[in-house]
Amino acid sequence: MTKTDVSGLSLLGQKTDLPAGPEEAVLERVPSGHQGTNFVVRFTAPEFTSLCPMTGQPDFAHIVIDYVPDEWLVESKSLKLFLHSFRNHGAFHEDCSIDIAKRLVDLLAPKWLRIGAYWYPRGGIPIDVFWQTGAPPEGVWLPDQGVQPYRGRG
Amino acid sequence: MTKTDVSGLSLLGQKTDLPAGPEEAVLERVPSGHQGTNFVVRFTAPEFTSLCPMTGQPDFAHIVIDYVPDEWLVESKSLKLFLHSFRNHGAFHEDCSIDIAKRLVDLLAPKWLRIGAYWYPRGGIPIDVFWQTGAPPEGVWLPDQGVQPYRGRG
Amino acid sequence: MTKTDVSGLSLLGQKTDLPAGPEEAVLERVPSGHQGTNFVVRFTAPEFTSLCPMTGQPDFAHIVIDYVPDEWLVESKSLKLFLHSFRNHGAFHEDCSIDIAKRLVDLLAPKWLRIGAYWYPRGGIPIDVFWQTGAPPEGVWLPDQGVQPYRGRG
Amino acid sequence: MTKTDVSGLSLLGQKTDLPAGPEEAVLERVPSGHQGTNFVVRFTAPEFTSLCPMTGQPDFAHIVIDYVPDEWLVESKSLKLFLHSFRNHGAFHEDCSIDIAKRLVDLLAPKWLRIGAYWYPRGGIPIDVFWQTGAPPEGVWLPDQGVQPYRGRG
Amino acid sequence: MTKTDVSGLSLLGQKTDLPAGPEEAVLERVPSGHQGTNFVVRFTAPEFTSLCPMTGQPDFAHIVIDYVPDEWLVESKSLKLFLHSFRNHGAFHEDCSIDIAKRLVDLLAPKWLRIGAYWYPRGGIPIDVFWQTGAPPEGVWLPDQGVQPYRGRG
Amino acid sequence: MTKTDVSGLSLLGQKTDLPAGPEEAVLERVPSGHQGTNFVVRFTAPEFTSLCPMTGQPDFAHIVIDYVPDEWLVESKSLKLFLHSFRNHGAFHEDCSIDIAKRLVDLLAPKWLRIGAYWYPRGGIPIDVFWQTGAPPEGVWLPDQGVQPYRGRG
Amino acid sequence: MTKTDVSGLSLLGQKTDLPAGPEEAVLERVPSGHQGTNFVVRFTAPEFTSLCPMTGQPDFAHIVIDYVPDEWLVESKSLKLFLHSFRNHGAFHEDCSIDIAKRLVDLLAPKWLRIGAYWYPRGGIPIDVFWQTGAPPEGVWLPDQGVQPYRGRG
Amino acid sequence: MTKTDVSGLSLLGQKTDLPAGPEEAVLERVPSGHQGTNFVVRFTAPEFTSLCPMTGQPDFAHIVIDYVPDEWLVESKSLKLFLHSFRNHGAFHEDCSIDIAKRLVDLLAPKWLRIGAYWYPRGGIPIDVFWQTGAPPEGVWLPDQGVQPYRGRG
Amino acid sequence: MTKTDVSGLSLLGQKTDLPAGPEEAVLERVPSGHQGTNFVVRFTAPEFTSLCPMTGQPDFAHIVIDYVPDEWLVESKSLKLFLHSFRNHGAFHEDCSIDIAKRLVDLLAPKWLRIGAYWYPRGGIPIDVFWQTGAPPEGVWLPDQGVQPYRGRG
Amino acid sequence: MTKTDVSGLSLLGQKTDLPAGPEEAVLERVPSGHQGTNFVVRFTAPEFTSLCPMTGQPDFAHIVIDYVPDEWLVESKSLKLFLHSFRNHGAFHEDCSIDIAKRLVDLLAPKWLRIGAYWYPRGGIPIDVFWQTGAPPEGVWLPDQGVQPYRGRG
Ligand SMILES: [Ca+2]
Ligand SMILES: [Ca+2]
Ligand SMILES: [Ca+2]
Ligand SMILES: [Ca+2]
Ligand SMILES: [Ca+2]
Ligand SMILES: [Ca+2]
Ligand SMILES: [Ca+2]
Ligand SMILES: [Ca+2]
Ligand SMILES: [Ca+2]
Ligand SMILES: [Ca+2]
Ligand SMILES: [Ca+2]
Ligand SMILES: [Ca+2]
Ligand SMILES: [Ca+2]
Ligand SMILES: [Ca+2]
Ligand SMILES: [Ca+2]
Ligand SMILES: [Ca+2]
Repeated sequence: MTKTDVSGLSLLGQKTDLPAGPEEAVLERVPSGHQGTNFVVRFTAPEFTSLCPMTGQPDFAHIVIDYVPDEWLVESKSLKLFLHSFRNHGAFHEDCSIDIAKRLVDLLAPKWLRIGAYWYPRGGIPIDVFWQTGAPPEGVWLPDQGVQPYRGRG
Repeated sequence: MTKTDVSGLSLLGQKTDLPAGPEEAVLERVPSGHQGTNFVVRFTAPEFTSLCPMTGQPDFAHIVIDYVPDEWLVESKSLKLFLHSFRNHGAFHEDCSIDIAKRLVDLLAPKWLRIGAYWYPRGGIPIDVFWQTGAPPEGVWLPDQGVQPYRGRG
Repeated sequence: MTKTDVSGLSLLGQKTDLPAGPEEAVLERVPSGHQGTNFVVRFTAPEFTSLCPMTGQPDFAHIVIDYVPDEWLVESKSLKLFLHSFRNHGAFHEDCSIDIAKRLVDLLAPKWLRIGAYWYPRGGIPIDVFWQTGAPPEGVWLPDQGVQPYRGRG
Repeated sequence: MTKTDVSGLSLLGQKTDLPAGPEEAVLERVPSGHQGTNFVVRFTAPEFTSLCPMTGQPDFAHIVIDYVPDEWLVESKSLKLFLHSFRNHGAFHEDCSIDIAKRLVDLLAPKWLRIGAYWYPRGGIPIDVFWQTGAPPEGVWLPDQGVQPYRGRG
Repeated sequence: MTKTDVSGLSLLGQKTDLPAGPEEAVLERVPSGHQGTNFVVRFTAPEFTSLCPMTGQPDFAHIVIDYVPDEWLVESKSLKLFLHSFRNHGAFHEDCSIDIAKRLVDLLAPKWLRIGAYWYPRGGIPIDVFWQTGAPPEGVWLPDQGVQPYRGRG
Repeated sequence: MTKTDVSGLSLLGQKTDLPAGPEEAVLERVPSGHQGTNFVVRFTAPEFTSLCPMTGQPDFAHIVIDYVPDEWLVESKSLKLFLHSFRNHGAFHEDCSIDIAKRLVDLLAPKWLRIGAYWYPRGGIPIDVFWQTGAPPEGVWLPDQGVQPYRGRG
Repeated sequence: MTKTDVSGLSLLGQKTDLPAGPEEAVLERVPSGHQGTNFVVRFTAPEFTSLCPMTGQPDFAHIVIDYVPDEWLVESKSLKLFLHSFRNHGAFHEDCSIDIAKRLVDLLAPKWLRIGAYWYPRGGIPIDVFWQTGAPPEGVWLPDQGVQPYRGRG
Repeated sequence: MTKTDVSGLSLLGQKTDLPAGPEEAVLERVPSGHQGTNFVVRFTAPEFTSLCPMTGQPDFAHIVIDYVPDEWLVESKSLKLFLHSFRNHGAFHEDCSIDIAKRLVDLLAPKWLRIGAYWYPRGGIPIDVFWQTGAPPEGVWLPDQGVQPYRGRG
Repeated sequence: MTKTDVSGLSLLGQKTDLPAGPEEAVLERVPSGHQGTNFVVRFTAPEFTSLCPMTGQPDFAHIVIDYVPDEWLVESKSLKLFLHSFRNHGAFHEDCSIDIAKRLVDLLAPKWLRIGAYWYPRGGIPIDVFWQTGAPPEGVWLPDQGVQPYRGRG
Repeated sequence: MTKTDVSGLSLLGQKTDLPAGPEEAVLERVPSGHQGTNFVVRFTAPEFTSLCPMTGQPDFAHIVIDYVPDEWLVESKSLKLFLHSFRNHGAFHEDCSIDIAKRLVDLLAPKWLRIGAYWYPRGGIPIDVFWQTGAPPEGVWLPDQGVQPYRGRG
């Protein structure tokens, strides 16, 4: 049975403060225990919030991230802190969604990654943003994210 | 088998224009064929729209009306036209919902009536309005309206 | 284990024609095997259709009937034929729904009966009709019918 | 922590044959470990099948049983075998449903019991049967069974 | 048709900053247009967030508020800002939920009010908090909030 | 982190009137902050309404738009106003749906765009319209719109 | 904005009788306003009924039709009347489903068409029929019909 | 309109006994009325039951069969009897599922066939079996079976 | 705004081992910040597991606990550890469910408490256990737990 | 009808202890009865639990395994015991999920296998792991696993 090498981690297992913003947040990684195997890891973050850069009012989103690791896995506690660090950050929906994904791509150099960002409605019309780094590697199994469409009332 | 007396109707079976506003709309009624029987009639109107009186922007609602007729039934085509007549009318959610119900109460003098108005969200927080004329008559069967709660995304 | 007395039935187990109308349909009954026991029998008929008396166009409904037998049970094949006999009959929604229930009340003299008729939308606004003969007998267990509300699209 | 007295059981933990019919099936009971406490036990049996006494064809039902024990609990393996024993037994829906409940009432003399039997449709119209021994004891908590209504297709 | 008196409002129709905390937030009210009528107003706020007072990490909740107005209605934009003002406030789930409700009770002196706060899971076990000021006024119609239970995965 | 260039916008952050019709509505655009990246933006508009050109009666639709930006993003407030501008415009379902999409194609010259228009039923039979400008660009991730099918009642 | 040419229609906007059978029903068509554009039109007809040719008993189905127009659109009122004309027509499920589709193919000569017919259960086992004229044109977007599978009870 | 040739059938329209086992069951077929047309026929059988060959206890399954006919259609009443004939037959899940499909392949020599067998859980872990005769014919439309995954409780 | 008194807690904010069994687990409590207020606190624990006392095999349950505090609130981390402490404990479903509830009653002396335990199926028939300490206090608002019924497959 | 060769099995039909860990668990296999047929077998295990290697606290997952047998089938009781053997084993989510799959690949040398592991949330963000051994064999039918996405609350 596989043992994960956690020797390089600094955040896990200790109390940590909320980072002041995404630039301050430290994303950590561990070596994948199955580097020759093309599997998908999915994170579902229903608790994302940032600020509107025009009005300073809060925005909310449900975010799902899928990736196929190459050498690295993202450590999940540091990912949580990174996502929470947008709490007082102002950003447009499209930019914010793509920026999160690109930060992970920089950290992990994954074989493939995608993000689905499902924003709560403003003005009655929600925005969703979908991005992937390209077609998934051949032979990878990738279920759809299955988030229900917005439907107003009734 | 019961025959409905439709001799007093003017709108049914002919082409009709959209009334200019709720004051102009003509609500019609027919005698109930079962006046001694306490049954409930439910109308579900998922296509309600009015205007915000402050901004002039459209508002939308899913509306459900339940009533126990006494002598009169509302004619359903005139009800549809009455509801559509709010299309260019400005009104607050709470007022608009109660006003619709009271107009029907005036027309029908029903044994009992209630309205559920489920408004689409503005600013992320939808408003629902629920009103009934009092406790339902004894022995009446009244299923709940069962409209799903708003849940944002995810 | 209880044996039902079916000696009075004429329709069961033989080919039968569709009755020409509700007046022609023969509703049959059998003695209840548990006459001292207050149980509920529910029939769900998602296949009801009649004609609009004004336009001759078809109407459709999903109908649910609950009753507490006294001495008699309705025989289910004759009930099916009775319901199908409305196929070429013209009737208003409210009248048709109550008439079905009253016909069963006449046949069975049940301790209690209710009908829920959930009509398909015409003009965007469906009508539901709910009737019961009065409050259910004390100590009877009666689940709600749980039919989902109409919600248009989306 | 409570220990159940299983000294009187004969079926549990050994291989058992399917009983030839409900009369042959042996229902077993154990003393309740909380005899002064009015709690509800619910069994959900989605695998019930019997035969039609007129045609010999199989019938199917989803059955839910709720009871408030007095001195005895029904042993669940014997309950399963009892229910499976209807596999080659011919019975009408209403009779079969009530008979199951009464057999349990005889065995357990519970403070209260109810059965919901949700039969698969024959001729397009399913039958449900609901029975309870009377109003539930005061202060007992009893969620509804929540089985979805039949809805045909679409 | 009813006209709402909005003469006492200061926030509506102008750009407003996010209040620094719940003590700083200004809740506003308007006179009810139907003061003799016992109707229910429901607000659904799926975008609530506060901080854990022990760890400083974000907490999230879906909040539903129902009330029966007496003389006053809460103005919905000020309610939104009040709820958003908890963004950087530390509070326990139980306290935070009850405090929101009590603040509204102080402002509105409603005939009746309740709050349902459905908190996102921490440690795998979510907490819900349900409070009402007492039994609802007689004859008021109050649908349940219908929020789905938490179910983990699968 | 990306900053969106909003210098060319005229509508955002100020009170705006409802345009008299789609020809009068001003759709605005901003440069995409990620022009080399093939991501999808989805707008869900459950509040669409227009008029029937034959009868003048209101029609309603739930509309979902997906596109892959090239140089431009549509500004969402102007999109909302554009959609609301159909409120007093008469159009057939098929024409109206395709026209909305083509207007966006003209404004944005996107790499790809599709529209799903889910119209509320008239005469019992709803119409859906689905169009895309062609096959999506290679390697783009595009979830299906997942709008539930219409199912009448029951 | 596109204007539909309705000059060739005879049924729209006037009262029409129910056709005696599918051979008598008149299907009408209008020129497509977007003949160079490969879009899909979907009709959902939850109100289909015909007769069993062996027993004369009613059958019911939920029917969904998708097509890509070439030069012609089917006029929706005539489609409704055509579907209703099967009301007194005897046909097997497989034949009836394919015949409807082929009649539309003859009228419209569409680029592509498919039909899904979801028949209500008889004998406990519903039949679905799925047919398309071939693979859809390249680059057309075609959501699945998403009709829920039959699941009996429970 | 197509007429099905039923001259070769022996079971339809007469009372039939339950076959003693799958070897005794007679599957019948009729010529397809659309032999040049590649359509799919789906049967959904939520009422399948057999016996465990090791313990003699009942097993249950929900079974869905899709096929593309060549010259023959299976007659649905004989299919129902064939499936019911497993009632007293002992078989492993995998074997039973594939054997049903192969029996139909032998009878019909279809262009293509698949079976999905969704078995009720034993030991907490249900088994599903999925088989098709190969890739479906080109240009055939084949919706997925859409049976919900098992999820235990909660 | 209310401050919770946490001075008596020993587990919160430090690493803790899994208790060896329910007798070893330490349940902690804090004073309620709203002792004069009758609110409900709900815990949902979808991750419960214990052992079968007869076979030593694992059992699983989804558990929901509602209570109305008097002087004390249960501290949620200690509750989680208490529930996890059943991991290697053997107990019957009925006993285990009631024992959990009674342990909380002993700790908290609440005004009222109930437990719903929804056990995963064994032998195809799941058991649910429902208990409350008596009727809830007057004027308390208590939503039902809304856990979906078990339904096997299909 | 096929007979499965069970001569090599040691666990089936006898009482067995829970293995101490995955290394101790004995996975058994039987020869496939349809070795030339490419069918899929799916196991759904909603009752998986292991320990966190860092904290010793329990983790939970819902696991679905699909495979196409070559010469061997896994015996389901031994699979259940193997999965339960992780109960006191510490492992990271990604490692644990892939290790289960690889153990089955070693035992069965299947034509193809995949695993979907849906872990309960820790810190608000659940992890899913998806792996398959490569693209499925041509012509195999493989429904998606259809597990609903996590959605927090509301
Ligand atoms: Ca999918
Ligand atoms: Ca209800
Ligand atoms: Ca209920
Ligand atoms: Ca809607
Ligand atoms: Ca309930
Ligand atoms: Ca309710
Ligand atoms: Ca999909
Ligand atoms: Ca239906
Ligand atoms: Ca799909
Ligand atoms: Ca069904
Ligand atoms: Ca699909
Ligand atoms: Ca679960
Ligand atoms: Ca409820
Ligand atoms: Ca089932
Ligand atoms: Ca699928
Ligand atoms: Ca949510």
